[in-house]
Amino acid sequence: MNLSRSAALLKLLKIKYPIIQGPMLGVSTPAMAAAVSDHGGLGSLAVGGLSPEKTLELIKETKQLTDKPFAVNLFAHDVPDQPDLTHFSAMQNFLKEFSLRNNIPYQQIQPADLKFYSYSDQIEILIKEKIQVVSFTFGVLNTESIHALKNAGITLIGTATCIAEAVLISKLGIDAVTAQGIEAGGHRGSFLTRDLPQIGSISLILSIVNAVAIPVLAAGGIADGKAFRAALELGAAGVQAGSIFIPAAESIACEAYKEAVLSAADTDTELTKAFSGRWARGIKNKFMEETKKAGLETPHYTVQNLLASQMRAYGVKHNQKDYISMWAGQSSSKAVRGTTAEILKRLIDDTFSPF
Amino acid sequence: MNLSRSAALLKLLKIKYPIIQGPMLGVSTPAMAAAVSDHGGLGSLAVGGLSPEKTLELIKETKQLTDKPFAVNLFAHDVPDQPDLTHFSAMQNFLKEFSLRNNIPYQQIQPADLKFYSYSDQIEILIKEKIQVVSFTFGVLNTESIHALKNAGITLIGTATCIAEAVLISKLGIDAVTAQGIEAGGHRGSFLTRDLPQIGSISLILSIVNAVAIPVLAAGGIADGKAFRAALELGAAGVQAGSIFIPAAESIACEAYKEAVLSAADTDTELTKAFSGRWARGIKNKFMEETKKAGLETPHYTVQNLLASQMRAYGVKHNQKDYISMWAGQSSSKAVRGTTAEILKRLIDDTFSPF
Repeated sequence: MNLSRSAALLKLLKIKYPIIQGPMLGVSTPAMAAAVSDHGGLGSLAVGGLSPEKTLELIKETKQLTDKPFAVNLFAHDVPDQPDLTHFSAMQNFLKEFSLRNNIPYQQIQPADLKFYSYSDQIEILIKEKIQVVSFTFGVLNTESIHALKNAGITLIGTATCIAEAVLISKLGIDAVTAQGIEAGGHRGSFLTRDLPQIGSISLILSIVNAVAIPVLAAGGIADGKAFRAALELGAAGVQAGSIFIPAAESIACEAYKEAVLSAADTDTELTKAFSGRWARGIKNKFMEETKKAGLETPHYTVQNLLASQMRAYGVKHNQKDYISMWAGQSSSKAVRGTTAEILKRLIDDTFSPF
Repeated sequence: MNLSRSAALLKLLKIKYPIIQGPMLGVSTPAMAAAVSDHGGLGSLAVGGLSPEKTLELIKETKQLTDKPFAVNLFAHDVPDQPDLTHFSAMQNFLKEFSLRNNIPYQQIQPADLKFYSYSDQIEILIKEKIQVVSFTFGVLNTESIHALKNAGITLIGTATCIAEAVLISKLGIDAVTAQGIEAGGHRGSFLTRDLPQIGSISLILSIVNAVAIPVLAAGGIADGKAFRAALELGAAGVQAGSIFIPAAESIACEAYKEAVLSAADTDTELTKAFSGRWARGIKNKFMEETKKAGLETPHYTVQNLLASQMRAYGVKHNQKDYISMWAGQSSSKAVRGTTAEILKRLIDDTFSPF
């Protein structure tokens, strides 16, 4: 194994093993991030789209649990002053009808109820709280934010799903880039191309490693030592693993979601816009299938995300997998139960122990 | 690198390096297959859907060029006595109109003109010609054919795009399986599931290696030594590489197609049914885009393949990339020009030389 690329990453992130826990809104927690950072990796706190108050609260909670650096993950997309209401009414009617049919309480939403937060309102908090690593997805941070964060000595990691996105990230002076292969669970980070790039990890990592000089982290399908070592062979400096942590004791995924991940067949996930309006990979369920069948256009991200949030909250509360977004990658059936520390240690041992 | 799995494959296929040249109808040739077999890999002759006469002719031609074993690749799908003519007229009208608009001669096809060949008419030839390896895709050979081939001492290799397909292949007593990741160019081998499995190579190889005891060949994205070594780390016994041979001197791809492959961006390929009625990955062009825009349902494979064949032949003859199926994988921009032997040697050196 060629670990020279990893050495630079380990130094950059001040970690012992080249592994980042993937930020997973609705799954990962301060306790999970702290456990990963405490055991030699880099934990990630997902705060994309959250209010400044909630962001600060989660950061403080994580800091109480670990003295080690951890990453805070932002959604680096533009949040418009006025939401784009294309397809809003048709989708709300569908959601109302779907909820009624499945005995899910549904409360009508008015466009004025839609409340969005921009990452730019979180930057100051990250600097004040002396966060050491900020990662982002869905786009690139604006120049002002990049300067502010870099002036504060913060290490930055972007997310790319094709060469052009990685090159842009590198040109902006970002320190590292996560190459998100099509295997990855959750939202696609894609932001540059009209069509969603659907590039498999082998091709994606090869080409991004060739195209940029900054360290590349492989995300998507990294569920065991074989996959981890393969990513390093492809030229990645390290990996970002998400799905293997979904069943962790520190995860707030509901039991039905955890069970679905543990028992997923390899063909059980697919890309959907149904839950949020952005393409994301999750385990197929009734809501995904019926939305697809209805053939409706999905409102844009954040609008659709809020429209579907009541149903998702109901699903989580009642542990019903048909109404929740069960984001998961294509290797997620390899996940096992355990504490976050145990899951991390298992991956590290499987990767680096002589075999 | 763990090469213990490769050792069994090398013995099984009587080759020096664990690499098979992917069969590519319309690209690969007897000369290409012979060159790969002569230089330590296993060449493949693509005869899927060809007449028994043409099959025999290509086999004889290959045998005149090499004494080494090579694989002959079949399309293992059922060919119905009567073609399924759903969507036939609407698609023919679209093709007529598209051809007219682009000054391509178009000759009306009657359903009675459609002529199909089944793999079962090729089996006897393979046995008589003492072919040593038979690979197949689009399904599994029927029990009778498997028995006949195995009784003749022929080694069999199936193609799988998900666990269930690999397990079925293994249970039928097939000797090895090619795991075709979503990175791969050309037709998807998928045959068991309603939805096309779109599993990236990292997840696919991991899971198939776990699920079956026979050797697994990784196909999709294998364009250099890094990818080759990654596939071996994932547990593959060897690889099947196709796209890197498209620009070879021995390839019959037209110049426009070769140029498109050499200059492809990572996001330039996509899955389409436009050319053949079966999902396949190729470099986007006008015909793919206009067919998608027209929103027509595509007739089934072989029907659509024949419907579009005049246009494809015109494109090849006039070296016009907008009318030909430019099958290519997601790493194909890493391809270079050269003889087949040079391209093969380059891959082998890049994989196995100390670095």
